[in-house]
Amino acid sequence: MYNFKNDYAEGAHPRILERLATSNFEQALGYGDDHYTQAAKQLLRERMGNPEAAIYFVSGGTQANLLVISHLLRPYEAVISCRTGHIYANETGAIEATGHRIIPVEGIDGKVSPASVEEVMEAHKLRPHVVKPRMLYLSNATELGTIYTKSELSDLAQICKKFDLLLFMDGARLGHALSAAGNDLSLADVAANVDIFYIGGTKNGALLGEAIVFPSDELAADFDYTLKQKGALLAKGRILGIQFLTLFEDHLYFDLAAKANKMAAQIAETIAQQGFHFLTAPYTNQLFPILPKQLIKELLNNYAFYVWKEVDQDHQAVRIITSWATDERQVDQFCSDFKQLASTIR
Amino acid sequence: MYNFKNDYAEGAHPRILERLATSNFEQALGYGDDHYTQAAKQLLRERMGNPEAAIYFVSGGTQANLLVISHLLRPYEAVISCRTGHIYANETGAIEATGHRIIPVEGIDGKVSPASVEEVMEAHKLRPHVVKPRMLYLSNATELGTIYTKSELSDLAQICKKFDLLLFMDGARLGHALSAAGNDLSLADVAANVDIFYIGGTKNGALLGEAIVFPSDELAADFDYTLKQKGALLAKGRILGIQFLTLFEDHLYFDLAAKANKMAAQIAETIAQQGFHFLTAPYTNQLFPILPKQLIKELLNNYAFYVWKEVDQDHQAVRIITSWATDERQVDQFCSDFKQLASTIR
Amino acid sequence: MYNFKNDYAEGAHPRILERLATSNFEQALGYGDDHYTQAAKQLLRERMGNPEAAIYFVSGGTQANLLVISHLLRPYEAVISCRTGHIYANETGAIEATGHRIIPVEGIDGKVSPASVEEVMEAHKLRPHVVKPRMLYLSNATELGTIYTKSELSDLAQICKKFDLLLFMDGARLGHALSAAGNDLSLADVAANVDIFYIGGTKNGALLGEAIVFPSDELAADFDYTLKQKGALLAKGRILGIQFLTLFEDHLYFDLAAKANKMAAQIAETIAQQGFHFLTAPYTNQLFPILPKQLIKELLNNYAFYVWKEVDQDHQAVRIITSWATDERQVDQFCSDFKQLASTIR
Amino acid sequence: MYNFKNDYAEGAHPRILERLATSNFEQALGYGDDHYTQAAKQLLRERMGNPEAAIYFVSGGTQANLLVISHLLRPYEAVISCRTGHIYANETGAIEATGHRIIPVEGIDGKVSPASVEEVMEAHKLRPHVVKPRMLYLSNATELGTIYTKSELSDLAQICKKFDLLLFMDGARLGHALSAAGNDLSLADVAANVDIFYIGGTKNGALLGEAIVFPSDELAADFDYTLKQKGALLAKGRILGIQFLTLFEDHLYFDLAAKANKMAAQIAETIAQQGFHFLTAPYTNQLFPILPKQLIKELLNNYAFYVWKEVDQDHQAVRIITSWATDERQVDQFCSDFKQLASTIR
Repeated sequence: MYNFKNDYAEGAHPRILERLATSNFEQALGYGDDHYTQAAKQLLRERMGNPEAAIYFVSGGTQANLLVISHLLRPYEAVISCRTGHIYANETGAIEATGHRIIPVEGIDGKVSPASVEEVMEAHKLRPHVVKPRMLYLSNATELGTIYTKSELSDLAQICKKFDLLLFMDGARLGHALSAAGNDLSLADVAANVDIFYIGGTKNGALLGEAIVFPSDELAADFDYTLKQKGALLAKGRILGIQFLTLFEDHLYFDLAAKANKMAAQIAETIAQQGFHFLTAPYTNQLFPILPKQLIKELLNNYAFYVWKEVDQDHQAVRIITSWATDERQVDQFCSDFKQLASTIR
Repeated sequence: MYNFKNDYAEGAHPRILERLATSNFEQALGYGDDHYTQAAKQLLRERMGNPEAAIYFVSGGTQANLLVISHLLRPYEAVISCRTGHIYANETGAIEATGHRIIPVEGIDGKVSPASVEEVMEAHKLRPHVVKPRMLYLSNATELGTIYTKSELSDLAQICKKFDLLLFMDGARLGHALSAAGNDLSLADVAANVDIFYIGGTKNGALLGEAIVFPSDELAADFDYTLKQKGALLAKGRILGIQFLTLFEDHLYFDLAAKANKMAAQIAETIAQQGFHFLTAPYTNQLFPILPKQLIKELLNNYAFYVWKEVDQDHQAVRIITSWATDERQVDQFCSDFKQLASTIR
Repeated sequence: MYNFKNDYAEGAHPRILERLATSNFEQALGYGDDHYTQAAKQLLRERMGNPEAAIYFVSGGTQANLLVISHLLRPYEAVISCRTGHIYANETGAIEATGHRIIPVEGIDGKVSPASVEEVMEAHKLRPHVVKPRMLYLSNATELGTIYTKSELSDLAQICKKFDLLLFMDGARLGHALSAAGNDLSLADVAANVDIFYIGGTKNGALLGEAIVFPSDELAADFDYTLKQKGALLAKGRILGIQFLTLFEDHLYFDLAAKANKMAAQIAETIAQQGFHFLTAPYTNQLFPILPKQLIKELLNNYAFYVWKEVDQDHQAVRIITSWATDERQVDQFCSDFKQLASTIR
Repeated sequence: MYNFKNDYAEGAHPRILERLATSNFEQALGYGDDHYTQAAKQLLRERMGNPEAAIYFVSGGTQANLLVISHLLRPYEAVISCRTGHIYANETGAIEATGHRIIPVEGIDGKVSPASVEEVMEAHKLRPHVVKPRMLYLSNATELGTIYTKSELSDLAQICKKFDLLLFMDGARLGHALSAAGNDLSLADVAANVDIFYIGGTKNGALLGEAIVFPSDELAADFDYTLKQKGALLAKGRILGIQFLTLFEDHLYFDLAAKANKMAAQIAETIAQQGFHFLTAPYTNQLFPILPKQLIKELLNNYAFYVWKEVDQDHQAVRIITSWATDERQVDQFCSDFKQLASTIR
């Protein structure tokens, strides 16, 4: 039974484990004041061409989201998100638990449109009887595997400026987005267009870890207090620093994402060749093919993946995810099995 | 410059790193549903002779504290803690940020007394104009390196029962406490006397990780929601499971703590032999000797440790901490240096 | 310029002001322990045929909503509400500020359907990655002036039971609902079908004041703490007690609501006679007629009311509200003006 | 049985009730946009010689405190208060419920000293492991009936500036303080020295109501959202506006406070003449005489007041409060009874 359910089924890239081992008995300062963490931050600043960026390493995506949002919003301020956005769909009210409403909007293939932001602003004019929208949250890659183009991001940045909204990009799968076929964004472009974002490690080669980036350090003032208060400041901060140092000291981070995308593309191509469609077009390491229920049932005998959504009486969309650690032979096998099953079930 | 500042300066016990490496490419379920985590929980239940205990692994101490307290208290309920307790002294208002007051009491050597609990209850009678005390928080070992005896713990459990208070033990250094010279508590005793506690991994051999234990699973109902909502549910939960499995599958956890305590005892003995006193008597891996300022200054040339407290014009208390990873040769060297310096500075 | 914008434009019913004056120099206990408050509670219990109901008087609707919801939900629990529900549409994130998500559903004429509750439950199964729906909030009368029938309420109570949801009725305009033409609910029916509700005073004759009712006093345990903590416990609690005593010692409360409804019905009839339709059918003291923009413009010269919603290029829905204090002559005048204007503008 | 337990046992000054009655059927805008409220704000600005002050009327003291503090502090910021301060001693954790720690300091007769602020700042240096002190809260008159002099307030303002602390004065009994014998502060002095304060109405002639004042309107930005979100925005805001208009259109507010103080002074003088001492010297309408238990017992047969504190085996401090509504004949009677009882009991 091979697992295509998520991109965190395995451990970490072996170079990370090696680095943890070789540095293991060095004594380091706690709470991220160690030299590995400092070096990793410096490296990331260089990679995004922004020497002033304030950077913080934390354990996971939900944690990153609640830290950033609770730090930047005042109590009556709200954040706009796609209905499919992770903070709205999958985080158990983590944002509301810090006191803030999420204003859900319908996305297009998981992406926010400027028009939907306009509508939210129009609908929130009856001050003070409504929350004050103050942030736009988006994910890149999205929870539906799609990506934002440079032009789309720039349009959103512009509308955020118009309405004095902070723009926050959840980059749990930023590597996959920036390594996708149709992508025209660089890390520097992201840093130049958003107010805050994070670079996901957990889903791309790290044991755990996300790098929160404030391109301008003004917004980051006192963020150290927030980290500690929410239980996000690891005593052995070096663990996170070492991982990002390893991922970014050469091109490893993007190589791993490209590998994940390539595995997904191979599967997507096979599925498309058999005449099936997708809920959203495949770009990154998440695929949402629409398949006959009988075919799904057969596939589930040998492969694990999520049934995502009822499409019609006979079809469901499923979610198939690959990762940096996906076994190429298993992908070959899946494709071969798929072709065979598809030829008999329609 | 050797570091005695804390017990998280190094990485993890090598057996943990090995286990992470050998398991690295196994595919596992996410969010702690993997078999390593399940096995670790089962093991811990056996170790404490309590097959019903509900156990959750999280990343760190502040996180564990805020999860437990925010989960168990209703909004108007408060937690009693020593003024020196970690939640009151060192966690940036993490508990208040979840809406609850901490009622501080003066401790005796960092320990709560039944009398101080009685006083708090007496002072909180003017319902509904005062908070409702509902939990007693204590640390074992305490933040001053002292430990609770079986009889002390039992007395506190009794007074908690009398006033319908939940008893919560912060066990960030529980290993050191249970391995201390004067200790008469077992893991089973702890589980039998408190309502909730946790077993600290971060300060005793793990990269990161604390095991939160609800001896009766009733109080744990819905704790999975709380974990997720507060950003504490790691995608790769296996990381925590593997570590606790390694620490508890034999006697490693307690061996590591005993090693830390032994290193501290050697230093304590040396200091005492030179005629110096301690702020609190030494029991575990934290020492608080009172030393002449001149002597401190000289020691700081070669060793890192915290100056803790002004005692008089010429003396300060310092904090010296050892760990499972402390280098015995460095301890020998420190003791030798100390004797030499002490003989010339008084 | 006569004001049909809301039902809180005037002060209080004169009998209330008189009672405040005659009792003014009596010394009374603070914080609602006075005999007026006790008598008002006893009276309400009798009126709803429930000697065990726990009752608390507070200042306003938003306050009542946040008190009840924050008291009854645990941190990860959420409340379901119509998108038009007051807590979702008009309270500045008051509920989220206490840590809870509101799950919005599309209503039918401002009312929740059992089917929408089923859908919410179906969509919140991926524990613990989603909030736990734990309460259904509904308003009666709704924010669109409609009312729940006995059978509708009973169906909702049943589905709440099925899913272990608390049923909470916002009764800011409960008087108007229970006095409406098509209504078949009594105060006792409400008390028998919901877990918590409140009886609005502010919009029906009081200076300020809502009576929160827990038909079973179990859920009310410790609610006194919540009142005080959220700043809702008035020092001179008698002010609220005296008002509810006056409103309920005879039929005044329902007479006032009937008067408001009657005024609205007269206006609605006039509008309908002129061939216009309504956004939602008129039942209570809130009307939502759809009118030509030109007609609206003319009416606004002499009458104040809200333009509610764009309907098409030439039409808008407006909101017209009457109250216990609405001047009958002004209503006559409005109807006469309306007829005249309508005859010339189409 | 005459009640000296508090200063909110009666209703409102008759002129307020009259004004409520005469304005009762005027239609007014809701939520404090009415002309009474606007006029009252304008009047207060004139009274304090500050045309820029932003003013908001709310229902009570706990509400005012939680609104101001939650509005001005960021999540990791804390407020310093005397241990006897109302927010620490009597508000059920209302401040912590909004996420903020209160740092208690020992007061001198209920007053904060600059030295204690220095100590707090010294003790909160280990960033980010401790909360960030950001506000100093003080009450004038204090909860022990004492008052701040101009020089004391100025010293505190200076130390707040030094440490970038906001200075917040709880003025639930500000009228009594500014009308006290030893007082040298004016309303304008208060406005010039603090960042925020409020003027208490509930305890000085109003049915309910406190006027929150931001001398500089910068800090008040968005406070309207906070009011609404916390359930503090009354639909019929006129009720509050009318009351403050009545209290401040002439000297009524200060006359009422002076009357309360005078009644207390008469009692204090009688007690002192009989040779008894006070817990804190009497200044305003709260007295804390130390009396023999037997004498207390006798007094309680005819008068209601709180026993405050055990002083020694035979003595207790009690709290006696007068108000604008205190009956002079009852005070004469009390004094006469006291003299008689005191002559027989020692």
